[in-house]
Amino acid sequence: MAPSDSCTTFEQLKREILAFADERDWGQFHTLKNLSVALAGEAAELMEPFQWLEGQQSFDLMDDEAKREAVEDELADVLIYALQFANQGKIDVASAIRRKMGKNARKYPVHASKGNSVKRGVDREDV
Amino acid sequence: MAPSDSCTTFEQLKREILAFADERDWGQFHTLKNLSVALAGEAAELMEPFQWLEGQQSFDLMDDEAKREAVEDELADVLIYALQFANQGKIDVASAIRRKMGKNARKYPVHASKGNSVKRGVDREDV
Amino acid sequence: MAPSDSCTTFEQLKREILAFADERDWGQFHTLKNLSVALAGEAAELMEPFQWLEGQQSFDLMDDEAKREAVEDELADVLIYALQFANQGKIDVASAIRRKMGKNARKYPVHASKGNSVKRGVDREDV
Amino acid sequence: MAPSDSCTTFEQLKREILAFADERDWGQFHTLKNLSVALAGEAAELMEPFQWLEGQQSFDLMDDEAKREAVEDELADVLIYALQFANQGKIDVASAIRRKMGKNARKYPVHASKGNSVKRGVDREDV
Repeated sequence: MAPSDSCTTFEQLKREILAFADERDWGQFHTLKNLSVALAGEAAELMEPFQWLEGQQSFDLMDDEAKREAVEDELADVLIYALQFANQGKIDVASAIRRKMGKNARKYPVHASKGNSVKRGVDREDV
Repeated sequence: MAPSDSCTTFEQLKREILAFADERDWGQFHTLKNLSVALAGEAAELMEPFQWLEGQQSFDLMDDEAKREAVEDELADVLIYALQFANQGKIDVASAIRRKMGKNARKYPVHASKGNSVKRGVDREDV
Repeated sequence: MAPSDSCTTFEQLKREILAFADERDWGQFHTLKNLSVALAGEAAELMEPFQWLEGQQSFDLMDDEAKREAVEDELADVLIYALQFANQGKIDVASAIRRKMGKNARKYPVHASKGNSVKRGVDREDV
Repeated sequence: MAPSDSCTTFEQLKREILAFADERDWGQFHTLKNLSVALAGEAAELMEPFQWLEGQQSFDLMDDEAKREAVEDELADVLIYALQFANQGKIDVASAIRRKMGKNARKYPVHASKGNSVKRGVDREDV
């Protein structure tokens, strides 16, 4: 069985992704700008299977094994570019995520945010 | 000093992100569809500071501390939604990434892909 | 009353948008790549007010005048960049749209496509 | 020769696009939310051929007839969804665009904005 999320660090996958790109001499194309564009492209592909569905149906779709694998592949593409962006930008993602979650916690205190989507819908940032 | 990528597993951050959403009762909004839309929104915000720059300039921008923090925050937002998507979709991201990298390795063998961006530019999938 | 869609041609708005950019000497930044990135950024902003809503709720949101104006502004931004992309790429959009609708009509014949979203959900192209 | 931008009004294409969707009974899927997601998906596809290119190269790509047609098709898809969004949201796009350009003119006065991309790079809104 493949190593799972419970025993894989961010550093390990960042290195594997960097090695993959370096073997192919792709670093020359991997500016932060280009990687952000590629990441956004993969994020759009992740939306695509859900685009005509209502919310609950997006879970049902995952019961189909072929569709689940396609969705997982798109999520993987998003994460691969995000981690390669971190490689090229020298970003420690665990620190960045925790710092941002701290900001989000101050912006959305539990008591004021509980179950509240309407206010969130007009704001610019969310968890 | 905050725990870094070298000692943080995917599982750890997935749990922290899930707890954050659960405390605020946001699971009701976090369908796979909605999360994919939110993720794409954050990916677009990550592109934004680079949109009028040439490739090399996107690295220079990171020398400005305030802009670097803003970029890191946007990358964090992308990753937070990606990991919450994994939570809600019951996806092991380390396995998904490695399986996808295996497919990519077959699609882009080293000898044929080295330094080649033109062919990649017309293809649909990368890294 | 402002001239409406019924008496405004694509050419008229393309010219107004080009003049606006030229006055500010922005043509230097308006490569096709940069404009496509800016357009995608505005498209993401158009999604944002709807991201936590179910489908029908996205219509209800338009009953609020301030939110309607914000949505119309985002749609305008999308169209401004799309038309400036057409300016810079020397594209006749009326011809391009009609040619693409011809392709779509062959891909989605009425008898096979009527009321069918599931097949569309797994395809890459729509309307 | 097909009617061109100089003699096609927004209203004409909005009607043709609405008729296309209505013939296929697709209105049921065309909530504002879903259309904004589909639009963002097409915007991402428009970025894709340019993602590994520098700015100037994005113009060169258009010299290749097959690639030009592919780019024009993607721009058409963006516009089709934008105009169908206008149909479903009852938006007069000519008025919306001109109102937004008025706001942009106040935000980016000619004297302060001329040739200035850096300030624009950190702002949220453009053209």
